[in-house]
Amino acid sequence: MTTIETFVRVLDLGGTFVFAISGALLAVNRRLDLFGILVLSFVAGNFGGIVRDVLIGAVPPAALSDGRYLLVSVLAGLITFFLYSGVDRLRSPVALFDAAGLSFFAVAGAQKAIEFGLSPVMAALLGMLTGIGGGITRDILVAEVPQVLRSDLYAVAALAGAGIVVSGDQLGLPYGISALAGGLLCFGLRFMAIRYGWHLPVAHLSAQGRAGVEGRKDGGDN
Amino acid sequence: MTTIETFVRVLDLGGTFVFAISGALLAVNRRLDLFGILVLSFVAGNFGGIVRDVLIGAVPPAALSDGRYLLVSVLAGLITFFLYSGVDRLRSPVALFDAAGLSFFAVAGAQKAIEFGLSPVMAALLGMLTGIGGGITRDILVAEVPQVLRSDLYAVAALAGAGIVVSGDQLGLPYGISALAGGLLCFGLRFMAIRYGWHLPVAHLSAQGRAGVEGRKDGGDN
Amino acid sequence: MTTIETFVRVLDLGGTFVFAISGALLAVNRRLDLFGILVLSFVAGNFGGIVRDVLIGAVPPAALSDGRYLLVSVLAGLITFFLYSGVDRLRSPVALFDAAGLSFFAVAGAQKAIEFGLSPVMAALLGMLTGIGGGITRDILVAEVPQVLRSDLYAVAALAGAGIVVSGDQLGLPYGISALAGGLLCFGLRFMAIRYGWHLPVAHLSAQGRAGVEGRKDGGDN
Repeated sequence: MTTIETFVRVLDLGGTFVFAISGALLAVNRRLDLFGILVLSFVAGNFGGIVRDVLIGAVPPAALSDGRYLLVSVLAGLITFFLYSGVDRLRSPVALFDAAGLSFFAVAGAQKAIEFGLSPVMAALLGMLTGIGGGITRDILVAEVPQVLRSDLYAVAALAGAGIVVSGDQLGLPYGISALAGGLLCFGLRFMAIRYGWHLPVAHLSAQGRAGVEGRKDGGDN
Repeated sequence: MTTIETFVRVLDLGGTFVFAISGALLAVNRRLDLFGILVLSFVAGNFGGIVRDVLIGAVPPAALSDGRYLLVSVLAGLITFFLYSGVDRLRSPVALFDAAGLSFFAVAGAQKAIEFGLSPVMAALLGMLTGIGGGITRDILVAEVPQVLRSDLYAVAALAGAGIVVSGDQLGLPYGISALAGGLLCFGLRFMAIRYGWHLPVAHLSAQGRAGVEGRKDGGDN
Repeated sequence: MTTIETFVRVLDLGGTFVFAISGALLAVNRRLDLFGILVLSFVAGNFGGIVRDVLIGAVPPAALSDGRYLLVSVLAGLITFFLYSGVDRLRSPVALFDAAGLSFFAVAGAQKAIEFGLSPVMAALLGMLTGIGGGITRDILVAEVPQVLRSDLYAVAALAGAGIVVSGDQLGLPYGISALAGGLLCFGLRFMAIRYGWHLPVAHLSAQGRAGVEGRKDGGDN
């Protein structure tokens, strides 16, 4: 195993752990039972990577062929289950863990896509998808509109981090440096967006548009 | 690239564009931000094709290996974002764009499934799934019951269009003709269903059945 | 085709039928039309197996390359559609059919994962995922939190059944015996959980935790 492969694996496992924590916290908040918590931990922690691996043809996905992903997910779920009352005193713990997991996954996802020969633009996009896939699935499983579609600069932060990794690869920089820079940029953007309420613009809705929305919600299926 | 491949690609890009518009319109209606709009555009425009490609083993999917799908999706999202107040004056724009995208995808999906050696019945079914996959994912992402499961003749229209393409292939007709016929049939069926309220029958629910529904909704999880 | 392969196929088709029934019943309860019923039948009956096949690289999935899965799903949907008022008199029919489908799929999914060379732990996990994948997708499609995340011992029962099959394979027992034992254990656990309200523990939520939940629900996407 080369140094790069080891580094990607460590990033992947780290991202799995923090995403699994975010899944477990959400599961506890929604009053799911212990196994529901473990399932949501595994899904939140691994679904982004599983989707990435299926899309680039790396089957069976690393999350299934390497037992450590399961171990790390179950560990995160159990820690959250037994120490929840301690964990939930942290301010916005879900959002912070989520930002860290997003950074890990965006960087590692972009690198793996590069290794499988995808073009730079698509590798950056796949890094972003790796980062947001677990969180999207986590939110869908509790029947909520995924945070990524509403949150300030969420996907943009993942795309920026993945973009740094891809750019570094194109420029021939050592992977460790571009991965660190990309991860910090992603986490920093997300943190600032949460802290200062940075957000992207929302489209202008005319009065008719709003009426249409409500009409569609109430009545129709067309 | 042969003529058939070019035609399939054009259908795919056209379907991507109109589905992406439908995703962007829904995202604007649900007050998602700019990136949420672009994400929903990409998902609505490409998820049907991505699911099809993963299922037939064509990985990485065309939507990831060919940058034009991304470009077309982003373009559709930006147009909707900046020109929404103009677009929303059209009557039922979501439904019309949706019907056009459905027709494009059902035809192109069936053809690609034939090329990958699936049986005629399965190719028609996969054409239907290609057509409805993007819309289903779009609706799930905003936490709604997918339109396809409620709408009048939605999946039937896609299946009919895909069936024409498969039948034409079995009869040795030129692809262009059967694709055009299948697409028009699908769009026509969908349009008439919207216009005249054509719909499929709903199962008879006894009083006990309705009580059971409400009981399940309120209380239980079994 | 060897005896084992035949047995796996029979289990798969049986599981498809009972899961499709559960999908059709839910679709009728949610007032979907005939095609919505058939779509939900197919999804509930086949999505677990399709996800399993995509993950282990067996594409196109058996549910698409073998027409009998489609036939069985459509049959289940039509039976439910025409005989619903009879079927719904059975006590908790959705839960019972669901338990039977879960047992079939957990056993067959674990066996197929073993055949594709996955490790014992992952084969058991994949058996569980095969069992719960169809039901999760079925519930997501009607915009509900999946039953598996709330239900008493649901995933645990599937994991136990799959675990028996994997253990039997490791010990060199005939597949028929371990499959029967695993299936009965899974069904028995699920049945007892429904009958006697067996359930897994839920994490302790402090007062602050509950406040946080409500705050997140009402307001923000922090």
